Amino acid sequence: MTTATPFEARQTRVIWPMSELTDHSGGHSLVDALTSGARVTLTWEDRQQAHFPLSWLRDHCPCTECRHTATRERLYIPLELPDSAPEARLEDGNLELAWADGHISRFDAGWLRQRRPGQESVDPVPARRPWAEGFQPARVAHADFVGGAAGERAWLTALLRDGLVLLEDGPLADEEVSRLAERIGPLRATNFGARFDVRSKPNPNNAAYTAIGLPLHTDLPNWRQPPDIQLLYCLENDAEGGESTFTDGFAAAEALRERSPEAFRLLSETPIDFRFQDEEHDIVWRAPILTLDHDGQLLEVRFNNWIRDSLRLPLDQADAWYRAYREFWNLVHDPRHRLEFSLLPGQMIAFDNRRVLHGRNAFNPNSGRRHLQGTYLDLDLLESRLRVLARSA
Amino acid sequence: MTTATPFEARQTRVIWPMSELTDHSGGHSLVDALTSGARVTLTWEDRQQAHFPLSWLRDHCPCTECRHTATRERLYIPLELPDSAPEARLEDGNLELAWADGHISRFDAGWLRQRRPGQESVDPVPARRPWAEGFQPARVAHADFVGGAAGERAWLTALLRDGLVLLEDGPLADEEVSRLAERIGPLRATNFGARFDVRSKPNPNNAAYTAIGLPLHTDLPNWRQPPDIQLLYCLENDAEGGESTFTDGFAAAEALRERSPEAFRLLSETPIDFRFQDEEHDIVWRAPILTLDHDGQLLEVRFNNWIRDSLRLPLDQADAWYRAYREFWNLVHDPRHRLEFSLLPGQMIAFDNRRVLHGRNAFNPNSGRRHLQGTYLDLDLLESRLRVLARSA
Repeated sequence: MTTATPFEARQTRVIWPMSELTDHSGGHSLVDALTSGARVTLTWEDRQQAHFPLSWLRDHCPCTECRHTATRERLYIPLELPDSAPEARLEDGNLELAWADGHISRFDAGWLRQRRPGQESVDPVPARRPWAEGFQPARVAHADFVGGAAGERAWLTALLRDGLVLLEDGPLADEEVSRLAERIGPLRATNFGARFDVRSKPNPNNAAYTAIGLPLHTDLPNWRQPPDIQLLYCLENDAEGGESTFTDGFAAAEALRERSPEAFRLLSETPIDFRFQDEEHDIVWRAPILTLDHDGQLLEVRFNNWIRDSLRLPLDQADAWYRAYREFWNLVHDPRHRLEFSLLPGQMIAFDNRRVLHGRNAFNPNSGRRHLQGTYLDLDLLESRLRVLARSA
Repeated sequence: MTTATPFEARQTRVIWPMSELTDHSGGHSLVDALTSGARVTLTWEDRQQAHFPLSWLRDHCPCTECRHTATRERLYIPLELPDSAPEARLEDGNLELAWADGHISRFDAGWLRQRRPGQESVDPVPARRPWAEGFQPARVAHADFVGGAAGERAWLTALLRDGLVLLEDGPLADEEVSRLAERIGPLRATNFGARFDVRSKPNPNNAAYTAIGLPLHTDLPNWRQPPDIQLLYCLENDAEGGESTFTDGFAAAEALRERSPEAFRLLSETPIDFRFQDEEHDIVWRAPILTLDHDGQLLEVRFNNWIRDSLRLPLDQADAWYRAYREFWNLVHDPRHRLEFSLLPGQMIAFDNRRVLHGRNAFNPNSGRRHLQGTYLDLDLLESRLRVLARSA
């Protein structure tokens, strides 16, 4: 038997439907399937080989009894290990298993290849990339964002990668920020509402609603789960001052780790309280300024001087904590790492509120008007949207 | 000088306003304040003594320059340690500090006492309590919930403590669930909308929207941050079957830790993928079934057999993981730990979706109607609401 070349194989292989919507058409045909003990050894036509546990194969059966046809969800519950090996057959280069109890499972060869042990899934969601010196945000035209998948993908990719992206040349239309957000997912409502107006107001309950300068910060660190993504759409910006500022909190934290490991340790291991109170709310959460995963990688920055609550630390730890806080403050505000620019009417800045810090310079409310409309989105739904757009790319 | 008794002291002490809304009126007067090095040593009339760092006192100054009068937020930024000791004076039994630069800070004695180093804050939010054998959920009448703070507090306290509470004798009114939820906070919207109808539908995209039995599970473990609190309001329940089931996932996990430490370890240390796909969404998250904090305490259970995605584990780990999964499955579904009852029309069950698993028996959609309306809320806002209600208690 002559072996087909990979290219020919991809052209002629019979693709079996599986339960997921993800594409599995690109793989090679199978040329061998051998059961042995609690595993099946599969060989593809390019000699790639992989072992699959019987328990795994039974659990992943895509038949209509094991998967709901409409929801695609798993119905099979893996409560018993297969007690004897199935009969393995190849059909159209794909795998068919006949289990001892008569159940038949049919797996596409490409689908199995994507899932062989040790093989990671492929995901269009980009890795985070720290801002390099001189970083400037990617710009996407409003018309491209709303005009087709490519613009929206570019916007999503930049935002997920850099934590910041600028949309420009949009209409000066009330609620445009909500319309753009709802293309991605439902607005994430907080104690400030689902959509908020950033302008100088009488009786503010938040520093953003004044004209004072706002040092760099993250929003709502007093929530267990602060909002992920913030959108700020500029409708008016004629007042003197009011330039927007941003910095990559992860990059600043890494600079702190490099320069002052002890300060980094204190800020990542000392939980402090954040608290917001008004007549209607009293929202409290305790967490360190820098949250790390079990491997010491940064997960989140919580940094907001206004709503830092009373510091509850043993007497001998307070001064060291303040020194570490000050050091991080200075790094974050260092002009070398900080972006500063005026938002133009029709521009919308979007950023990852759990990574990128934002602020603004003071403005003079008597010199002109400044009005931004903002909302929040869940990162889960940005990633989801990028995956859906990538299906047809 | 004779020492006043504590009771008399509380009656006569002059309370100074501080920037927070929390009550600090209950403390004793100060009788001494001594600066020494970088600290001030305070003595209250009952001889309780505490040391406060100068850095801390400067940071917590409540004057109108250091705190915004309308937002109550901190304006002072602790960028410099106080370089010399302030002059400390007592006035009306409270503390006044005159700093070297002329700044004056005035602190109420009771406020300081609440915040002395080593003193934890008092919070009306109850600790979680595992379900004991024979646990039954607390019941609160709809009329009491909407009729005043006491009913709502009882409902919130039971829900936060037990992870489950039953509201009863409510009206059979469309959207009543939304009205009740909005007393607490904005609805938490997901890919299934802000408010969802649980009934058998044509073309379901979720097993809940069929008539099949639903084994115990948590909702949306494929989100980074699954919704915290779920409300399910029963409008109709005439069909045969459809009994609701619940179990305390934390208690079940602790039972697993006790009985099978290795299975517990595998489920808490092995991240697996959860994934939901339909035409509009592809939402993926990787996390272990049991999430622990750095001290090994349970933070969250993610358990949903329908949307477990392809298991990506090394060949030699798969069988052990399936055994551990099966063991936890059996514990969770053990009738000794599981509640089962029929929701009556006008009842609403609320539960902590990240702790308590829920399910239902299959029902016969031809035998009658079954219709629940559901939504989600953020735990942050339940806790906040309880704190606000406790202000006036």
